[in-house]
Amino acid sequence: MTRPSDNDPPGAADLTRRALLAGAAGVAGAAALGARPYRLLAQADSAVPVIPPDPTAVPGVLTTARGARSPFVQPERAPAGVLSGASFAPLQNMSGTITPSDLFFERIHNGVAMVDPQKWKLLIHGMVDRPLVIDLEQLLRYPTVTRTYFVECSGNGRSAYRAPKPDLTPQQVDGLLSNAEWTGVPLATLFREVGVRPKATWFVAEGGDAARLSRSIPVPKGLDDALLVWGQNGEPLRPSNGYPVRLLLPGFEGNACIKWLRRLELVDQPNMSRDETSKYTDPLPGGRARQFSFQMDVKSVITSPAYPKRLGDTGWWPVRGLAWSGRGRIAKVEVSTNGGATWEPARLEGNILPMAPVRFEQMWKWDGKPAVLLSRATDESGAVQPTRTEFERARGIGTDYHFSYIRGWNVDRDGSVHYGVDA
Amino acid sequence: MTRPSDNDPPGAADLTRRALLAGAAGVAGAAALGARPYRLLAQADSAVPVIPPDPTAVPGVLTTARGARSPFVQPERAPAGVLSGASFAPLQNMSGTITPSDLFFERIHNGVAMVDPQKWKLLIHGMVDRPLVIDLEQLLRYPTVTRTYFVECSGNGRSAYRAPKPDLTPQQVDGLLSNAEWTGVPLATLFREVGVRPKATWFVAEGGDAARLSRSIPVPKGLDDALLVWGQNGEPLRPSNGYPVRLLLPGFEGNACIKWLRRLELVDQPNMSRDETSKYTDPLPGGRARQFSFQMDVKSVITSPAYPKRLGDTGWWPVRGLAWSGRGRIAKVEVSTNGGATWEPARLEGNILPMAPVRFEQMWKWDGKPAVLLSRATDESGAVQPTRTEFERARGIGTDYHFSYIRGWNVDRDGSVHYGVDA
Repeated sequence: MTRPSDNDPPGAADLTRRALLAGAAGVAGAAALGARPYRLLAQADSAVPVIPPDPTAVPGVLTTARGARSPFVQPERAPAGVLSGASFAPLQNMSGTITPSDLFFERIHNGVAMVDPQKWKLLIHGMVDRPLVIDLEQLLRYPTVTRTYFVECSGNGRSAYRAPKPDLTPQQVDGLLSNAEWTGVPLATLFREVGVRPKATWFVAEGGDAARLSRSIPVPKGLDDALLVWGQNGEPLRPSNGYPVRLLLPGFEGNACIKWLRRLELVDQPNMSRDETSKYTDPLPGGRARQFSFQMDVKSVITSPAYPKRLGDTGWWPVRGLAWSGRGRIAKVEVSTNGGATWEPARLEGNILPMAPVRFEQMWKWDGKPAVLLSRATDESGAVQPTRTEFERARGIGTDYHFSYIRGWNVDRDGSVHYGVDA
Repeated sequence: MTRPSDNDPPGAADLTRRALLAGAAGVAGAAALGARPYRLLAQADSAVPVIPPDPTAVPGVLTTARGARSPFVQPERAPAGVLSGASFAPLQNMSGTITPSDLFFERIHNGVAMVDPQKWKLLIHGMVDRPLVIDLEQLLRYPTVTRTYFVECSGNGRSAYRAPKPDLTPQQVDGLLSNAEWTGVPLATLFREVGVRPKATWFVAEGGDAARLSRSIPVPKGLDDALLVWGQNGEPLRPSNGYPVRLLLPGFEGNACIKWLRRLELVDQPNMSRDETSKYTDPLPGGRARQFSFQMDVKSVITSPAYPKRLGDTGWWPVRGLAWSGRGRIAKVEVSTNGGATWEPARLEGNILPMAPVRFEQMWKWDGKPAVLLSRATDESGAVQPTRTEFERARGIGTDYHFSYIRGWNVDRDGSVHYGVDA
């Protein structure tokens, strides 16, 4: 066991005195430090370790097979415990662009299917030369790719559109968005294996859950960038993300990225399953509807400051958020701190990848007066987030999907931050 | 609750019959499917759900606040339960490049420090104009960056060097390597805040664990790409990775990336702490030593096929692995399947980032004969992995760090794969 010794760097003594004083104000007191009153825990997920006032004064906890979160960090998806519905990712607790796999949003239609990988099989049939049944071991032998893509539910933003309230959090506003590094096999590889016939223009993808969710997808998407993924953020998919295999259609709405994939059928017209007729068809003004609206629009959300954050004082604060587009790369994000009167380009952070979220950040000097924070993203196709007025004019008040207009947050004089701005 | 209905796509009936037959061979039997014998679990981390033979026949489990792994997927770091030592990441269970945060390797010197974020403070002092004590709330107000970098222990590969055995796994060979997307504040920003004096050429970084691990780092690295990180893979650091704040020195050996960071002191010469004299100094032939050998060398490891994998039959198999370099981007990885007699360039997968691992993959047609699989990486500086003979000649048999030579795996006639090749 290593102990502080007399070759400690100069200055450490000062800091130790300070830490001891801090310790005296803590639960144990400085006198007890020498007596080592702290449990040495082999920390399990459920164990809450005792936190020493000065961790340099006592040995830490033992190494563990898996590293639990700090007891001070307990992010959760919400709501939980539903059989058909959605569980939102806690965007306000996140940094960077990757969504931890256990916090990746889930939208399920009849529970999370639990699949035995030894029994999993994928059938590829229909308008093909050589129908195929493939198991997981076989799938993993094909050449793989690793790509970072977001997945977003087409209904993301519905609560904020239908019932905006000051106490909505980023999680509640836009938490049906998540992002991961995916590993899998290009669908084009398997399309070549089965010999997709020239007349096949669509393929039906069917899930292995009790809803047997199915969608019809144009064959060109399958040949372009569609993946059969089994790896997510370095490990196998988790059941709520389709373990063992999920269809991943970059930039397309989440429900089309069929989880627990069991069947692909090549056909010459869309299947018109209930999941693309009674659901996932957008009502438009005048009784019309928009069907097969797969591609997610350009969008952004400020994740900080946001409810329930409260600015502790005036001065510099970073305005941080995420921007993404199903059409490709983000080209620009602008931030307004005065409700849209003026806009300034925010700094885009890190690698800007197609169909992957990018972090934006804009330093803002708060003067203590009320402020209205908005973000507006533009993608490489030139598409810009519309205002709510423009959005409603195009889509109608009854629209149920693809809520991509500009939203934001009110900062009050006391530093409190609330949702409520539809620009 | 959604039920399969008569607008199910054609072909589903066939598959359902097949699934029912599969179900009949399972634990419950086809007759029981209608009676719904499966528990609907609100799955907790510790709960093991009952896996239905045909998940399309019964509702799945409910949504959860955090998504647990499949009960069929239970990767672990090893060994666990140590106070001073290392816990290796299970490389053979991983895909892509990101290491899940709970499987990120840990090397600790006196336990995992448990830090209360409300009490955490960082002192920056020494040869500076304005010494600074900063808390976590203040640190998070500075402009942040998000970058993907590996961290590798300088002792990674020691077991394979000292005591190569056929039953070493990729985890045991090279599992003190992990990779994450980090979010934090450039150290250069804080160096500007405190006004680092021109004569300061080194800074001492000290950890808040009971070992108070400390290292001296050249100031130019601090001004170049060093980060004070608080975010890892989208969430706060976990305690085993230095929660709440860690120093991240891209490409430098892991021990210099001080965890639970508590103090930075600007000085005009290295501190010669025990952690850079009695440890982390490389012995060389002739009684000499190499000190402050921070930069990790170019390296690669084949993670599949590897022990304990067994090839089930002949034909095409992917040879997959990771390559990385502390000097920048990987330029090339070559794979040999004949013990180094010939080499072929492997495909590099995805974005190639500086000081971040890249996946390589080479399709290999196994003919059923014994084979020897090797990988050899080259980075953009032109550095190439040496053979073991070359490595030993330069570093000496007693070297204790930076094991960067070419390694590999033997494939036997029965398809079994074993470690044991030092090219």
